[in-house]
Amino acid sequence: MQINYKEAAAFLNKCSDVYILTHQSPDGDTFGSAFALCKVLRNMGKNANVLCSDEFPKRYSFMYENYTPQRFAPKTIIAVDVADNKLLGKNLSQYADYVNLCIDHHFSNTHYSQKLLLNGEAAAACEVIYELFCEMKADIDKDIAECLYTGLATDTGCFKYENTTPRAHIIAAELMEYGVDYAWINRRMFDVKSRARIKIEQYVISNMEFYLSEKCAMIAITNDVITEMGVAPEEFEGLAALTLQLEGVEIGITIKEREKGKYKISMRSVSDADVSAICAKLGGGGHVRAAGCQLEGSLESVKLKLLSAAAPAFGMDVWTV
Amino acid sequence: MQINYKEAAAFLNKCSDVYILTHQSPDGDTFGSAFALCKVLRNMGKNANVLCSDEFPKRYSFMYENYTPQRFAPKTIIAVDVADNKLLGKNLSQYADYVNLCIDHHFSNTHYSQKLLLNGEAAAACEVIYELFCEMKADIDKDIAECLYTGLATDTGCFKYENTTPRAHIIAAELMEYGVDYAWINRRMFDVKSRARIKIEQYVISNMEFYLSEKCAMIAITNDVITEMGVAPEEFEGLAALTLQLEGVEIGITIKEREKGKYKISMRSVSDADVSAICAKLGGGGHVRAAGCQLEGSLESVKLKLLSAAAPAFGMDVWTV
Repeated sequence: MQINYKEAAAFLNKCSDVYILTHQSPDGDTFGSAFALCKVLRNMGKNANVLCSDEFPKRYSFMYENYTPQRFAPKTIIAVDVADNKLLGKNLSQYADYVNLCIDHHFSNTHYSQKLLLNGEAAAACEVIYELFCEMKADIDKDIAECLYTGLATDTGCFKYENTTPRAHIIAAELMEYGVDYAWINRRMFDVKSRARIKIEQYVISNMEFYLSEKCAMIAITNDVITEMGVAPEEFEGLAALTLQLEGVEIGITIKEREKGKYKISMRSVSDADVSAICAKLGGGGHVRAAGCQLEGSLESVKLKLLSAAAPAFGMDVWTV
Repeated sequence: MQINYKEAAAFLNKCSDVYILTHQSPDGDTFGSAFALCKVLRNMGKNANVLCSDEFPKRYSFMYENYTPQRFAPKTIIAVDVADNKLLGKNLSQYADYVNLCIDHHFSNTHYSQKLLLNGEAAAACEVIYELFCEMKADIDKDIAECLYTGLATDTGCFKYENTTPRAHIIAAELMEYGVDYAWINRRMFDVKSRARIKIEQYVISNMEFYLSEKCAMIAITNDVITEMGVAPEEFEGLAALTLQLEGVEIGITIKEREKGKYKISMRSVSDADVSAICAKLGGGGHVRAAGCQLEGSLESVKLKLLSAAAPAFGMDVWTV
């Protein structure tokens, strides 16, 4: 049942002993939402913990450096930025059918929770959480503001991408007034890289292939490459932006080997080319500008399937590649 | 003489036949300011042209695609985002002592103009121009808003850097309401790279040297390297950000050969290390986080001078490098 801000505020005022669930492969938005909410609930005298299927990434350690899990049995389960309960991941799957409230900004939310506070226009779940805090007249401090700012900044590429709204800028301005160390956060989120990451980016840039009159860039990350580089697989996340950096490229495709002969494909578009339509042909889906699918076979056959599916977007067929 | 927004608005209402001067090596802020102001003045029925010592960079072509220079003798000279009249460059030096109004946001402005509208708190000159347009009740359209947005975004690293203010976010929000194609602008300003640029970045990343317990990253771009790569020298601009991307680096130094044995040094800091103090020791200057100097000698001796000057910032002397 979809509820509004007022109803969600009433729910939070009444709830107790809360587990706040984040999505697997956590990002700044799910973590920012969770730790901001956790702190507000604890400040209200309630028990609250943040849970994640994966280990808490170090990247977001500034959000949880003053956080200690409490010992209590949950009476309330809240999911934040989790569009589908499958995304809770293996270690939180036990809660998948018992989510009391989901707070989200994905139009694609599968309405798996008892109550759903959904603002599909919001740039980030943190934006929804912020509006909710305003409705609740919750006390926002620097730590809470930094969590919310981080979610807003990371989900919009630091206010760079299409999903940035005037409202997102206004909320950023309001959060900054709490003393958010935004330059430090942004440097950490967007600029600083590990040596391993720099190595990977070099590999990607050197090995990128261009097809369809150079409008399509493609990079394949095989398990052999990962092993050879000797770096943690999570360092290979988010390479899509690199595929799109060359002038003239409209679609970027990242092929990642999951296991022998099985590939996870991420597709991004910076033009009118609809990658969700391309991925749908291959059994996948997503958004116009960001979509994905899974393919099997040899790497070469996978590339050919992808190019065959993508070519019509440029009025070509693959044989003219 | 420093004037306020109201006085500047009155000046613009009265002025006629305006040359708008930008600084050499033009950036998004000086061009955004100039073309926004030019359009507003022309909309008021005045003659106005934008002048630059350098060729108009293609990167900003969307600002001037509907712009045609008019033929008239100037009665009014306005400089935008030009902190020092030396920065007008060679081809505009004839106007250096005759600037009627300068509109700027650099605290370091040398007060070379008859009238000066200076807001040192503003993130960009475009912010000052926007406030001025509000004071004038000027009609802002999509083109004008895109010029102003571009200046604001480029000077703040897309709202990423320390100089970003809450006010900058609020102005961005207001400008977006005019239909600014911000995602397209940001992609063009921040994400898209030429093949030549990608090649250079690879060179920089592969050839960067680390000193002073890896807190100082250094890259040297010699004329031999530029010749060998066969790319235009302007493609080598703005490499400082690359020097700062490795985790733990606090100071990034870019050494660029101007002519045989003469080097231009750019220094950036992301910590408390004050690079203006370091550059001052070497006869240069600048800001705490961005400064520069010029050095002569062999490349190796230049590096040693730089490290000797930088080492005390980390409580070291260069012999412990």
